[in-house]
Amino acid sequence: MGSAFVFPLSDNGIEVNLWGTWLDREIVDSCKRGFHPKLKKPLPDRVSLYYSEELEEAVDGADFIAVAVTSEGFSPVLKRLVSVLEKPTPVICLTKGFVEYEGHVILPSKCAQNMLMKKFGGSNFMWCSVGGPVKAVELSRFIPTATVFGISDNSLIRVKDFFSTPYYRIVVTEDINGVELCSAFKNVYSMAVGVCDGMYDVKYPDNYHNFRAMVFTQGVLELLRIVKALGCSPETAYGLGGVGDFHVTSSSGRNRLLGYKIGMGVEPEKAYREMLEEDLFPEGYNTLRLGLEFLKEYGVFSKVDFPLLVMLNRIIFGQINLKDAVEDFIINYTG
Amino acid sequence: MGSAFVFPLSDNGIEVNLWGTWLDREIVDSCKRGFHPKLKKPLPDRVSLYYSEELEEAVDGADFIAVAVTSEGFSPVLKRLVSVLEKPTPVICLTKGFVEYEGHVILPSKCAQNMLMKKFGGSNFMWCSVGGPVKAVELSRFIPTATVFGISDNSLIRVKDFFSTPYYRIVVTEDINGVELCSAFKNVYSMAVGVCDGMYDVKYPDNYHNFRAMVFTQGVLELLRIVKALGCSPETAYGLGGVGDFHVTSSSGRNRLLGYKIGMGVEPEKAYREMLEEDLFPEGYNTLRLGLEFLKEYGVFSKVDFPLLVMLNRIIFGQINLKDAVEDFIINYTG
Repeated sequence: MGSAFVFPLSDNGIEVNLWGTWLDREIVDSCKRGFHPKLKKPLPDRVSLYYSEELEEAVDGADFIAVAVTSEGFSPVLKRLVSVLEKPTPVICLTKGFVEYEGHVILPSKCAQNMLMKKFGGSNFMWCSVGGPVKAVELSRFIPTATVFGISDNSLIRVKDFFSTPYYRIVVTEDINGVELCSAFKNVYSMAVGVCDGMYDVKYPDNYHNFRAMVFTQGVLELLRIVKALGCSPETAYGLGGVGDFHVTSSSGRNRLLGYKIGMGVEPEKAYREMLEEDLFPEGYNTLRLGLEFLKEYGVFSKVDFPLLVMLNRIIFGQINLKDAVEDFIINYTG
Repeated sequence: MGSAFVFPLSDNGIEVNLWGTWLDREIVDSCKRGFHPKLKKPLPDRVSLYYSEELEEAVDGADFIAVAVTSEGFSPVLKRLVSVLEKPTPVICLTKGFVEYEGHVILPSKCAQNMLMKKFGGSNFMWCSVGGPVKAVELSRFIPTATVFGISDNSLIRVKDFFSTPYYRIVVTEDINGVELCSAFKNVYSMAVGVCDGMYDVKYPDNYHNFRAMVFTQGVLELLRIVKALGCSPETAYGLGGVGDFHVTSSSGRNRLLGYKIGMGVEPEKAYREMLEEDLFPEGYNTLRLGLEFLKEYGVFSKVDFPLLVMLNRIIFGQINLKDAVEDFIINYTG
């Protein structure tokens, strides 16, 4: 995703230093030879490439920094970033999920704020959380795409101009946490849709629309309940960051695929391991566990409000029979 | 849809008199011979069949009456119904769209209320508007389905029990108009999704997710703006009647198909005529025209709030080049 972001930036004449983590060495190698192996195309000319050990050079003099690692990688990468940063610099965050930090499950922005405050004090937190429906390959091919940027203050509205192109449209909100919550939980709810897809696509070919719509709607309702319960804006849940991102992720991608395998009858942990072996990391698997912990820690979890989340958790971590869990969800459905 | 509704009723031991309009003679004939030609299966034993001229017998002694005609047929059918009704009887309405009545564009419930008041006075309006994601064939095959019932007062909550089965789940609201508005406009917005599907499915095979999510989200946002502007409940728009029904209708069905043909380059009126010739009536085509008239009459229409509606109207009735209309929508996108 970080690499795909380079295309609109480059189209706007912005020079980008693209840094790869210690896991990305082969990708950087390939890009240096003129071909991005995941986007299946060369990067724009205006991009300079940096290996893991060159982080200091990569961020030197940067006007802003974008972080696009997995939620598992977020805390170690941010720690390294903060250690080499010389002045407070705006951070654009593409990470989706929760972060385990100092014994707590927190949102990426909170983790970053904590680390940055320790170095630079509290008044200079300049943050932008990116949410919404973006498959990286499509953005890198200039196919129309819209995204929501959650910004910490109005001084960051200029970030929108760095990225906006005729094919890449951006909506801005100040609801950073709402964007982060939707980004995290849409991965979870897309697994739930995937489970139902896996069960019913084959069972009822061409006749699986009503139930899918019921499950999708329930996912939207639960996203909405999450953001409302945590004091965020409902607009975020029914906008690009909620409905939009959930639409993409529940139609295609790794989290839906994990759900699909489980819905087809593969034992959940086995399905997860299989995907990791194929180098496909479905973030929703860990986000389900961490997200539930997060909701419980904030005292906003209830079985009545989150029946789809409960269904998925029972299937994945509760060792209940798949069919029973889904039937329980249907028979007790109240919206 | 009326015929599909018979299945959960029959499973609950309720006897149904199924009446066909003057256009349904062949369907009634076929059902009498033991096979419903559209649902591709026999109706339950507990169903009695009535031809157009037998309306009086069909409704005689009914505890409630369900109306499931198209919006074009609504006013003439309701007129006949009211003429044979002997006492105020609860009506369950499955019609989706607007009704032209006495020179105005109105919602079905208003049209019915007007007619029923003239006969029985104003205090006995017992009404239930059905909305939400139901493809008739799936309901008739007992595939899990959920629906929202908009009821006029709490005495009608018992209607929910008539229909509820393990495979058919019902959520109740008192927001009748919200349910009707979503039911009508989701057909319109599904045409808009269809247009984009038709343009991009072929142009970008396997890479048409971001833009579809952008368009779907915009449809949800505009549904929400419509219900809010008209004093209805936002919950209706992001629940089964809005998001849910829009999900089904924009994934499959006649309105999406009409949009798809237009998106593939067929001239709009030609595409519409072709579908009528194939006995496929895409209600959204008329609902687009009537819905815009309705919003304007209530003074809640603006180009800024409804860019997707504007895009579709320009394509279908504005004779603007398809590509220009879609590009205008993208470039001016603000959510």
